[in-house]
Amino acid sequence: MDPDSVSKAFVDHYYSTFDTNRAGLANLYQENSMLNFEGQKYQGAQSIAGKLTSLPFQQCKHHINTVDCQPSGPAGGMLVFVSGNLSLPGEQHALKFSQMFHLIPTPQGSFYVQNDIFRLNYA
Amino acid sequence: MDPDSVSKAFVDHYYSTFDTNRAGLANLYQENSMLNFEGQKYQGAQSIAGKLTSLPFQQCKHHINTVDCQPSGPAGGMLVFVSGNLSLPGEQHALKFSQMFHLIPTPQGSFYVQNDIFRLNYA
Repeated sequence: MDPDSVSKAFVDHYYSTFDTNRAGLANLYQENSMLNFEGQKYQGAQSIAGKLTSLPFQQCKHHINTVDCQPSGPAGGMLVFVSGNLSLPGEQHALKFSQMFHLIPTPQGSFYVQNDIFRLNYA
Repeated sequence: MDPDSVSKAFVDHYYSTFDTNRAGLANLYQENSMLNFEGQKYQGAQSIAGKLTSLPFQQCKHHINTVDCQPSGPAGGMLVFVSGNLSLPGEQHALKFSQMFHLIPTPQGSFYVQNDIFRLNYA
């Protein structure tokens, strides 16, 4: 697959997992993975999944507006940059967000998330 | 300097150069550098600087809201994620934007921009 297809497939998988089985996101991170979530820093799959599963809402729905990707270097890594909207129950207006992922290939031919930075875009 | 200080210094330098001497941005990129600008792709310092200096406005002012950074791997690279506002002459409202940079160390002890992805955040 070309990089654009890989990144779109990853993005679809990531956000559908987030919206339907958030604890399953732990499988996408490894021990050296890093998350900056609204400026708070987490490291390691367990810590990152702990943060994501303890967010103060149970249901949510991500809608993706744009996906950009670039190779990050000669080792097969990929940078993915996403913008979109996050709908929460009881909230009339969706929250805009931007997020970037640095994906690193695994020996099994898949990717894991080495770097993850998430920010809401306040109006 | 710690990574947060390096990334903040880079961000200050990048946007002050953008706002006062845009052609000088060419020095921050190399031949293998990549830019995605609102979904359009450019490669190499000359092509990237050509795009940035031909944007349809002469004056602009970036205001930075957030800067996040993470090491991108063992080779000393750094991921920098920025959100902010872009003010243009004659426009009443500033444009919100998000941008990410992948910085790679140079033998001279500085950094160049390997990857650059820019998106406006439309309301």
